[in-house]
Amino acid sequence: MEKHGLLYEGKAKRVYRTNESGVLWIEYKDSATAFNGKKKSEIIGKGILNNEISTRIFSLLKSKGIESHFIERISSNEQLVREVSIIPLEVVTRNIVAGSFAGRLGLEEGAVLNKPIIEFYYKNDELGDPLLTEDHIEALEIASLDEVALLKEKALKINEVLSQLFLEIGIRLVDFKLEFGKTASNEIILADEISPDTCRLWDINTNQKLDKDVFRKDLGDLTLVYKEILNRLGGEFSHV
Amino acid sequence: MEKHGLLYEGKAKRVYRTNESGVLWIEYKDSATAFNGKKKSEIIGKGILNNEISTRIFSLLKSKGIESHFIERISSNEQLVREVSIIPLEVVTRNIVAGSFAGRLGLEEGAVLNKPIIEFYYKNDELGDPLLTEDHIEALEIASLDEVALLKEKALKINEVLSQLFLEIGIRLVDFKLEFGKTASNEIILADEISPDTCRLWDINTNQKLDKDVFRKDLGDLTLVYKEILNRLGGEFSHV
Repeated sequence: MEKHGLLYEGKAKRVYRTNESGVLWIEYKDSATAFNGKKKSEIIGKGILNNEISTRIFSLLKSKGIESHFIERISSNEQLVREVSIIPLEVVTRNIVAGSFAGRLGLEEGAVLNKPIIEFYYKNDELGDPLLTEDHIEALEIASLDEVALLKEKALKINEVLSQLFLEIGIRLVDFKLEFGKTASNEIILADEISPDTCRLWDINTNQKLDKDVFRKDLGDLTLVYKEILNRLGGEFSHV
Repeated sequence: MEKHGLLYEGKAKRVYRTNESGVLWIEYKDSATAFNGKKKSEIIGKGILNNEISTRIFSLLKSKGIESHFIERISSNEQLVREVSIIPLEVVTRNIVAGSFAGRLGLEEGAVLNKPIIEFYYKNDELGDPLLTEDHIEALEIASLDEVALLKEKALKINEVLSQLFLEIGIRLVDFKLEFGKTASNEIILADEISPDTCRLWDINTNQKLDKDVFRKDLGDLTLVYKEILNRLGGEFSHV
């Protein structure tokens, strides 16, 4: 496989074309950003950690019958994925009240929700990623109501699998963000990444935050925390 | 009917108990407020106008089979209503893009929506009346998903009736806000008021704003505009 031209550079990843049509080459960057890019840092090793963690999670999901764009990890910070047309929605699943959600609705951080809540945010930096209702998604022609129902169903299924995975390693899956894309044949599959950048993960005994909130809130060394996640997932990390 | 103690004072109305259980006495105030109360004014005659306009609209809705809390108008600025327990939701129906909705979603003011959009906002001044999804409404225990479906159905039916009503008098019903309440027997009925305070109304030929945006945006004399609405609705206004 050959790496061709840069297709897109996001906050945490670079995406390249390859010599094979329909296959993209993703490079996980060491950048950490928060608050819609207002807070930024380079954190050596973060790209390697998220590539490895995301690989393990996508592989587990595949073994449970949940397709994603992931094909294979090809180096410490790179992976190959299927090319999809990203649906511009951040699909957020919440099990426990945390983050902006608490303040916005006047709920207490840490409260366990009676059942998971799915939210959709419009991936649009200029508008500040606003919350969308299903009517909005339809009116903006981002997705049909049937597609929205499918996204919710997929997010809930992934939530079940991941909640169980993390529970087994002593972690509560508080909330997480997914992105989905459409393949050339119009199939909707999971895309982007799943890592401590996109999940809130709390230690089940101490409630210690083991995710990007460590960076957002200056709570300590991000790489130590991400290494802890990787180690609990059965990975080893000795590069940094 | 005797007016008893003040039960509640809102931005635009005072609500009193009466000697009859289950019946409340509403006094429409001359206050105009906008931007969550940050902009305020006293506008002589506004209470009389909104009482008269709301009376006409609630009566029309009743004739079309849509129940509301409205019983009867008892003076120029007062009406009797059934006591209900207000559901803390602002139910907003949009036919045309306007107001904060345009900026929030990056849509053009004046664009006609393919179909009406219903939005729910949490009636909570402290939180700034945030947009809610149906999952939020359920999680906050404001209403069940079945009740939310009923609110949407009622809002869409009211939208049909009011759009037609306004069309007949040369006005486009751009968007409007409803509130609903539960009766003692747990029936959900329309409550609050329907007036140019709670609707966006544009002249069909000139697009002139004939609603509270005149106050929000300092576009002219509010009472002249509200009188225009009342006159087109077949009412006469000579008190002010």
